[in-house]
Amino acid sequence: MSISEMASTPLAQGDDVVPCCPPITAGELSPADAEKTAAMFKALSDPVRLRLFSRIASHPGGEACVCDIADVGVSQPTVSHHLKKLREAGLLTSERRGTWVYYQVAPSVVATLSALLDLRD
Amino acid sequence: MSISEMASTPLAQGDDVVPCCPPITAGELSPADAEKTAAMFKALSDPVRLRLFSRIASHPGGEACVCDIADVGVSQPTVSHHLKKLREAGLLTSERRGTWVYYQVAPSVVATLSALLDLRD
Repeated sequence: MSISEMASTPLAQGDDVVPCCPPITAGELSPADAEKTAAMFKALSDPVRLRLFSRIASHPGGEACVCDIADVGVSQPTVSHHLKKLREAGLLTSERRGTWVYYQVAPSVVATLSALLDLRD
Repeated sequence: MSISEMASTPLAQGDDVVPCCPPITAGELSPADAEKTAAMFKALSDPVRLRLFSRIASHPGGEACVCDIADVGVSQPTVSHHLKKLREAGLLTSERRGTWVYYQVAPSVVATLSALLDLRD
């Protein structure tokens, strides 16, 4: 998929989404930017959490409820704990609709990771 | 910077560089791929380590010796410890030339992070 095609994907970033930090190739990260970026990486540094994140990122429609993603081999309370950590780190957004809470990958995550690598114009 | 321009940058990935894992948008990461990717994120989840990494990534020529990057406010042994962790996680490569060891960002890191986000064709 090309950069231009990203505009139509669930992981697309809108024009109004501002990435957290400058590219790692642009110079040394400031201590404040390093703290923010390190916290994002820390939230993704657990294998089960990363699998839950990739399930949500790859789910049709770009969102998933906990009922769609809970079978990763850990208990339901552990799944809930990981989803809470991902939300607190700003990696996921969530919305309650009826019985279920639906999770989406936060657009700023893609913006930040892309900007870190200086992959966008 | 566009994707095409990356070919001439220090962080460019060669045609022979294979990223570790499929995109997070392509489906659930396998447990094995999640382990590898989580280890990479874990190595980048410390703010000082991330600042050292960005110093090397942004240094002229795409490499730096420890003499170039040591003034991040921690002791020399701590800097050495962080560089060792980054090298062990496959994020940096190193080469001794004369008195100094020079560190480079491993091409596979950019390939893997780009592939995770499905940013390349």
